[in-house]
Amino acid sequence: MQRITIADIAREAGVSTGAVSYALNGRPGVSRATRDRILAIAEELGWEPSPAARSLTGASTQTIGLVLARHPSTLGVESFYMQFIAGIESELAPRSFALLLQVVPDIEAELRTYRRWRAARRVDGVVVVDPRHDDPRVALLGEPDALPAVVVGDPALAGGLTNVWTDDAAAVRESVRYLYSAGHRRIARVSGLPELGHTFIRDVAFAEEMTRVGLEGEIAGTDYTTGSGASATRRLLTSHEPPSAIVFDNDVMALAAMGVAAELGLRVPDDLSIIAWDDSPLCQATFPALSALSHDVTGFGAHVARRLFERIAGERGGSHLDSTPTLRPRGTTRARLV
Amino acid sequence: MQRITIADIAREAGVSTGAVSYALNGRPGVSRATRDRILAIAEELGWEPSPAARSLTGASTQTIGLVLARHPSTLGVESFYMQFIAGIESELAPRSFALLLQVVPDIEAELRTYRRWRAARRVDGVVVVDPRHDDPRVALLGEPDALPAVVVGDPALAGGLTNVWTDDAAAVRESVRYLYSAGHRRIARVSGLPELGHTFIRDVAFAEEMTRVGLEGEIAGTDYTTGSGASATRRLLTSHEPPSAIVFDNDVMALAAMGVAAELGLRVPDDLSIIAWDDSPLCQATFPALSALSHDVTGFGAHVARRLFERIAGERGGSHLDSTPTLRPRGTTRARLV
Repeated sequence: MQRITIADIAREAGVSTGAVSYALNGRPGVSRATRDRILAIAEELGWEPSPAARSLTGASTQTIGLVLARHPSTLGVESFYMQFIAGIESELAPRSFALLLQVVPDIEAELRTYRRWRAARRVDGVVVVDPRHDDPRVALLGEPDALPAVVVGDPALAGGLTNVWTDDAAAVRESVRYLYSAGHRRIARVSGLPELGHTFIRDVAFAEEMTRVGLEGEIAGTDYTTGSGASATRRLLTSHEPPSAIVFDNDVMALAAMGVAAELGLRVPDDLSIIAWDDSPLCQATFPALSALSHDVTGFGAHVARRLFERIAGERGGSHLDSTPTLRPRGTTRARLV
Repeated sequence: MQRITIADIAREAGVSTGAVSYALNGRPGVSRATRDRILAIAEELGWEPSPAARSLTGASTQTIGLVLARHPSTLGVESFYMQFIAGIESELAPRSFALLLQVVPDIEAELRTYRRWRAARRVDGVVVVDPRHDDPRVALLGEPDALPAVVVGDPALAGGLTNVWTDDAAAVRESVRYLYSAGHRRIARVSGLPELGHTFIRDVAFAEEMTRVGLEGEIAGTDYTTGSGASATRRLLTSHEPPSAIVFDNDVMALAAMGVAAELGLRVPDDLSIIAWDDSPLCQATFPALSALSHDVTGFGAHVARRLFERIAGERGGSHLDSTPTLRPRGTTRARLV
């Protein structure tokens, strides 16, 4: 197989070799349309950077890294990560980049992975998910000469690193206001892993908005699994003052809650309103269909990847709002007579 | 950060440097217990192979590759891949390996990826999923000097390459026999992507077993998504002779079928029995809980990774049955008076 050169791509695209070089290295200097055309031709011809050149010059590894510090048993249940990864991948393929994925048991192992990847020049940059308060990963990646990184999460958690976020607090407030307007006075929230920063942000927004409308609301923590979501729901619904509406931190727990309600003989939405988060296709597969705080998870992943390429190309970082999840009322919520 | 050497690991483990070398390179010569202990110590100390040594000698890239030729929209819905990847990862982390993941639109792009990875020495070996009949990937990876590979699928699809498989045909036959014994005489199957080899194998097993018990059964093809599963179910249930039982090729389509049945006013399992495939935690979150053909998807992924490490270490390939999915009857199936 003959090696494809930058000159081959330039000839095919009808541009200079310089323009090809800019485009392949993700640097400014060519228009977006030209860059996309060059990348498409490079992909078509099967171009790859010379490994020799790469190791000698410290040039691109054509790889970005993602570490998930989650237990395998909690990873497979939610569709969030696979959709998010699919979004990242949609930006990698046209650049002939691939994703180096590592699943580790805890944050310490994640830190070791970043150190190892940096020392061995395995990736050009990393995507950091599930940031926490005082996150040691943010501290490590904030050091001089650290790997270029994009934090997926709120600016308050990113410690000045480039971050892409969804406005979860606004979404929680919207869901509380919606349920309040519909006549609900006992509203609960079933949240995700308590150590994650965005869980805390959503918890605070929920408590504040409930106070604002003059209510007190209960929050039950989980590990995002269907089992923990079902347990939390059962506990809430069999308590002394059961809620008439519950807002969940993902979709599979909301689905499990529909099962628990049916098991307890409660009708959804007449006896219990349910709002899911993330709005995967599952939400439209249930009957009644799940009302959900909806955002484009695949598009979110793609956005994160584009910001990481900007960082890798040397552009200054920043804080980028991807979207505010919006409430899509479907069959599991209904107005309630006060 | 001082580089950790093989001597450091040997001292810590109380073994020879030779034993450490065998263990780190995945070669025979140390017991499994010793190898696991050495790998744990290497991980603990933060050992990594020298990149210089690696590029000079063509030694391990500490990476295995997985290409998914699926559209992003179909990837995020099923939990199968994330659970399977979590299983692979459970075998990688203790060896300081990572997974290079690439999502591509089609088989041709997958072939280009393998060629590029091989030329650029990006991975030590690859896991090939969703094999088809006369699969060009199997042909490519069967060439001399090809990347070590493990095919995830039936021996009939692996073209002599190392493969790890689940006996899907036996599982389909069991589900048909179970439903027949329960009194069902109109049984349908909602299958996955028709171009995949295992879809064909399941289709044939279904048709043969139905013929054996003296029935004719309908098969409706889908793309595995909840939307296509719901459409196929609606078509079957509103036909002239609707089935009283449907066997699905994954779990999210079975879940969508419960929604369609409820929408049509059919009771599950009184009017319609439903059997899912893969048995993710979703199956126990619905009410009634979904009967399913169950296998350990995470364990399957781990098994595949171990076989790939054997291949990379130069061991001979072979065909390895991982498991036969077994029927777990839950709330969506019930005996029916003939």
